[in-house]
Amino acid sequence: MTDGIDVLVHEVGPRDGLQSIQTIFPTEAKIDWIRTEAAAGVPLIQVGSFVPPKLLPQLADTGEVVAACKDIDGLTMTVLVPNLKGAENGMKAGAHMIGQVISVSEAHNQSNVRRSVQESLDDFARIVEHRDSDPAYADIVISGGLATSFGCTISGPVDPADVMRVAEGLVERGAQRLSVADTVGYGNPGQVKDLFTELYRTVGEDFPVGAHFHDTRGLGLANVYAALEAGVREFDASLGGLGGCPYAPGATGNIVTEDMVFLLESMGLRTGVSLDGLVAAREIMERHLGGEPTHGTYITAGPPKGFVPASKAA
Amino acid sequence: MTDGIDVLVHEVGPRDGLQSIQTIFPTEAKIDWIRTEAAAGVPLIQVGSFVPPKLLPQLADTGEVVAACKDIDGLTMTVLVPNLKGAENGMKAGAHMIGQVISVSEAHNQSNVRRSVQESLDDFARIVEHRDSDPAYADIVISGGLATSFGCTISGPVDPADVMRVAEGLVERGAQRLSVADTVGYGNPGQVKDLFTELYRTVGEDFPVGAHFHDTRGLGLANVYAALEAGVREFDASLGGLGGCPYAPGATGNIVTEDMVFLLESMGLRTGVSLDGLVAAREIMERHLGGEPTHGTYITAGPPKGFVPASKAA
Repeated sequence: MTDGIDVLVHEVGPRDGLQSIQTIFPTEAKIDWIRTEAAAGVPLIQVGSFVPPKLLPQLADTGEVVAACKDIDGLTMTVLVPNLKGAENGMKAGAHMIGQVISVSEAHNQSNVRRSVQESLDDFARIVEHRDSDPAYADIVISGGLATSFGCTISGPVDPADVMRVAEGLVERGAQRLSVADTVGYGNPGQVKDLFTELYRTVGEDFPVGAHFHDTRGLGLANVYAALEAGVREFDASLGGLGGCPYAPGATGNIVTEDMVFLLESMGLRTGVSLDGLVAAREIMERHLGGEPTHGTYITAGPPKGFVPASKAA
Repeated sequence: MTDGIDVLVHEVGPRDGLQSIQTIFPTEAKIDWIRTEAAAGVPLIQVGSFVPPKLLPQLADTGEVVAACKDIDGLTMTVLVPNLKGAENGMKAGAHMIGQVISVSEAHNQSNVRRSVQESLDDFARIVEHRDSDPAYADIVISGGLATSFGCTISGPVDPADVMRVAEGLVERGAQRLSVADTVGYGNPGQVKDLFTELYRTVGEDFPVGAHFHDTRGLGLANVYAALEAGVREFDASLGGLGGCPYAPGATGNIVTEDMVFLLESMGLRTGVSLDGLVAAREIMERHLGGEPTHGTYITAGPPKGFVPASKAA
C-alpha cells in the first residue's frame, strides 16, 4: 500500500464502462479522461482490454491508450485480457498489471470466453509463464479475477466453495492479486462479509484482494462497506457509474467512483483521491458520451456542510 | 417484535414522501396506497402528520386517513407531530403511535419548529402526560425522533454527545421508542455503527430504536447495513424513494422501501414484506404522482435468478 493511502481506488470506467455502451470514444478523449482522473489522485486505472476488435470495437485502441499514458507519474495502468493472446499483447504494449477474469460459474465462463473454468485456469498459468519468460516483464503484476462470485444470471446462486476453489487455483498458478467480482449485482452485504472473510482464510489475510461490485440492485456501496469490514482495501468503481457487463443480461452499472470515494473519505479512510478532481474528470468523460446515461449522487448533492475528506485532514 | 419478523419496516412515504412534493394526493389515493402496502405485509406505516394545513396542505387530511385505515388488520399507524397540539389531534384521531421529532442541532430545530431543543423536550413531556391523562390512550406509543443526528445543513457536524443528551432527555420524559434520523443524508456507515453502538450503551441494548436514513449521497443502504451490524432492527423507508425534508436544503430522497426490503430479505432477515406486494403498491402510488420523480433499483432489475426471500424461506 502506498504511503498515506488506506484504500486503493481502481477506476474501471475506461474498460468496463466503455465496453458496455454503444458510443466509441476517440482515443484522445480516453487519454484526456485517464490523465484527468490520474491527476485527481486515482492510483489504478483500467485503461482497456486486449480483446479482438471485432468483439469490442470500443476498446480496439487499448494499445495506443497504454502507450500514450505510460508517462503518467504514479499511475498503475491495468488492462483486462480474456486469454494468453490478449495477455501477450498487453505486456508488449506496456501495461503494468494484467488481469484475467474467470467466471466461477461454469455456464457464465462458457458464455463469456467459451472455455471451461479449468481451461481458463490453464490459460492463466500460461499467462504467468509468459510474463516470467521475459525479464523485461518482471515488474508486471498478474491479477486473477473471479467473476460471478456472488451469483450468476445463467445458473443462479454460486457456491462459495467454488469461489475458494478458483481462488486457490489462481494463487497456485501465480496470481499476485485477486479481484472478486459481483459481476451481475446479486451480492448482499452479509454474503460479501462472509465470502471475503472465508477468502482471507483461504489465501492468507495479507494476500492482496480487490472487490468489484455492481449497483444493479442498489447494494453496491453497502457491499463496499461490508467488504471493508472484512478487510478489503482495494475497490473497482466506474466514474459516473458508467458500464455493466455485456455478457450478463440485466446487469446495469458499476458502483460510482465519486460516490465510493465520498464513502471512504467520509469514513476517515484516505484514498488520496480528490473529489473535485473526480468531478472534473467526469465532466470530460460526459462530453463524449453522446447522451449515454450516467449515475451517482455526489455529483448532485455535493459534500455535506463542513465535510473534510480524510485525505485532506491527514 | 412480531413472531417470524426479524426487522420491522416502517413506511414513511405517505408522510415524508408526500410532504416534500407539490402534488396533493386525493385522500382516497392515500388510503388505497396504505391498504395495498399494508397488504404487502408492511407492519408500520406513517400515514401522515398533524401539522397546520397551511404549512403542509399535502397532509391536511391526515385525520381522515387515520380514521379510514383503522380497520386494517395488523397495521400500526404512526403519525408525526411537531408539538403537543398535533399530538392531541393525533391521539383523538386514533393513531397507534405518535412521533415527535426534535432536531439535535439547535439551529435546525429552530428552523423546523421555532423552538429550542429544551423547549421541544418540554413539549415531549407534555405529550406523554396528555397520553397518560386518558385511559383510552393507554395503548398509544410515544416515539421520540432525533433529527440531524449525523449532521446538519445549517450547522454542519453534530456532536454524538448531543445526540446522547437528547436521547436521554426523551427517554427520561417517557419515550418508549427512539427514531434516529440522518435527516439530510450526511451520515456514513462508520459513523452510523459508532453512533448506534453508543446509543445502545446510553439507553440500554433492549430499548426499541429505529433508524431513518436518506440516500442523498448514495449511502442510505450502506448505513442500513451498518445500523444492522450495531443491532438496529427497525428502519424507515419510502416507497420509490419518494420524499426528503422541506427544511433541509439539498436533501433528496428517503431510502427506497423495496430496495431496503430486498437488502434485508437477501441477507436472510425476515421482514414479512412481499416484494411483489411493494411493486403493486408502488404502481398505485405512481398513478397519482403527476410526474414527480421516483427512485430505486429493484423496480428495474427485479430479483436475482433463484432468489428466495428470507420471509418465504422461513
